[in-house]
Order: sequence, then C-alpha cells, then structure tokens
Amino acid sequence: MSANDFDSVDRDKGVDHFESADRFELRPVGRVSSPLTDRTGAPRQPDEDAPPATIRLDPEFATAAADLRPGMRVVLLTWLHAARRDTLAVHPRGDRARPATGVFATRSPDRPNPIGLHEVTITAVGDAGFDVAGLEAIDGTPIVDIKPVLGAIETR
Amino acid sequence: MSANDFDSVDRDKGVDHFESADRFELRPVGRVSSPLTDRTGAPRQPDEDAPPATIRLDPEFATAAADLRPGMRVVLLTWLHAARRDTLAVHPRGDRARPATGVFATRSPDRPNPIGLHEVTITAVGDAGFDVAGLEAIDGTPIVDIKPVLGAIETR
Repeated sequence: MSANDFDSVDRDKGVDHFESADRFELRPVGRVSSPLTDRTGAPRQPDEDAPPATIRLDPEFATAAADLRPGMRVVLLTWLHAARRDTLAVHPRGDRARPATGVFATRSPDRPNPIGLHEVTITAVGDAGFDVAGLEAIDGTPIVDIKPVLGAIETR
Repeated sequence: MSANDFDSVDRDKGVDHFESADRFELRPVGRVSSPLTDRTGAPRQPDEDAPPATIRLDPEFATAAADLRPGMRVVLLTWLHAARRDTLAVHPRGDRARPATGVFATRSPDRPNPIGLHEVTITAVGDAGFDVAGLEAIDGTPIVDIKPVLGAIETR
C-alpha cells in the first residue's frame, strides 16, 4: 500500500470522532494478592521469574467466574494503577542508551490507558477466587477482565 | 491443591477491597473504520473471515504510535460499546442447546468490563492511523490501547 492509498484516513479528519464526552468507566472485578509489593521489584514479563499469585474476586462476579478450572490458560486484564497516563514515549526497559519509543510499540505500563495483559495458567480454584502461576502484577492490582486463551475454532 | 489450601482467599474476605470509589476512566485513543457495520454480521473471531480495517488515531496520541510499522503484530484493545455489562453467563455462540457458561470462561462481548482483544498484523502506516488485516470489530469501535505481541526477551 502506498502513501496515497492512506487518503481514506486523512480525508475524514474533520469528523468529530474524539469528542470529550467519550469516557468509559471500568470497575474492578477482583484484586491480585501477590508477594510482589512494589513496582521496581516486579519482573518485566511473566516468563522472567514472576511468582505465583492469588486472584481474589468480588463475590458479585462469582457467576462470571463459575466455569474457570485448574489448567485453563487465561488472559488477565489488569488496571496498572501505579502507571503514568501522560507518558507517550519511553526508553525501552529504562535504558536511556536506547532511543525513546512510542508506548504503543512497547509494553510499558506507562501509557494513556494503562491496561495490563497477563497470560497465565490457573492452578487452583476456590469459592472466592483462584490461583495462577507466574504473574508479574504487584499486590493489590485491580483485575478488570478475565478471558480464556483461544483454542481451535471448534472448541470455542 | 486441596480446598483447604485455598483458605488464604477466604480468610481476607472482610478486607474492603471492592469499595465503590474504585472506578477507572478509559478514554479512546482512536476508532475502527471498517466495512462491518452491525454486531450480528461481525465474525466471532479474527480467523473467521474478518475484513481488513483502518485504525484512525486521535492526533493527540501520534507520539505514542510513532514506532508502529507495517508487518508488526499488535494486540488492539477495544471498548465493545454495543455490549451488555450486566451479563454474567452466556450460551456459547448463542446456541441455547449448550449450557450457560460464566463469561470469564468465554470470549463473549457481553461482560462486566467489555474490553475486546484483537491480535492483528499492521499492513500500512499513515499520518493519521494505520491499516490492519482481519479485524472483527465493527465500524466506530473505540480503540483504548495498542500493544506489540511479545517476541523473545532480548528484543523487548
């Protein structure tokens, strides 16, 4: 696709798609309980020695969680409450020798809507939540959604 | 792990982790422009014949998007604005012959915080946004975040 082919984007710039009235309210459905207690001590990604954690769910959402089972792979969506929302570019992994990179091309927690994605395996399920292996989120992090990792089409 | 081992969850039930003051505000950073215009016509998952789409970004976030490139695999996070937030269980794929399943074990758009995850390949980048292949979100869907699909640790 050439630059000219992208006119479809520029042509509609005048359309008021970004009116300030557009705000969406998230509410936590649970919280992370973890030995990780501060952000600087948190591993950067789940395969870098993150500890097991417990997800404690608000009882109001018990029905939504009723079919979670040990062994399932799920994506936890978290609200990274310690993040900065006004950061648009970062030095990857805090290394100032590397060029600043727009946050949408990074996994920086600092970003306009600081939602974290964490793919984990459920190891145990209880009445008030479940345990997962290898979660890098710090203690108290709000959980906003839980989704199964997709398998083959016929099993969805 | 036995049921008794899960006492760590139940023991702390009295802690006020779910106070109503906890609300997080999302704001769109862009919108989907797509030939898909209604929810019933949308494919259920991206590998089921979803069409190409254009992501139009709010100019305010141009710096955050500056390092997106054709060929990159990214996860688009959308706000599924047509979804019902009070739905806690669904019949998978609308088939009432299948048992109702808690939404956290499904990819139903109807869920307490209706955030969609869409893994796509960027096919072209322009001043006001970018094109992607195979996106199942309907026209006008708000984009709330864009994250690179993780590669090997050393390239992060």
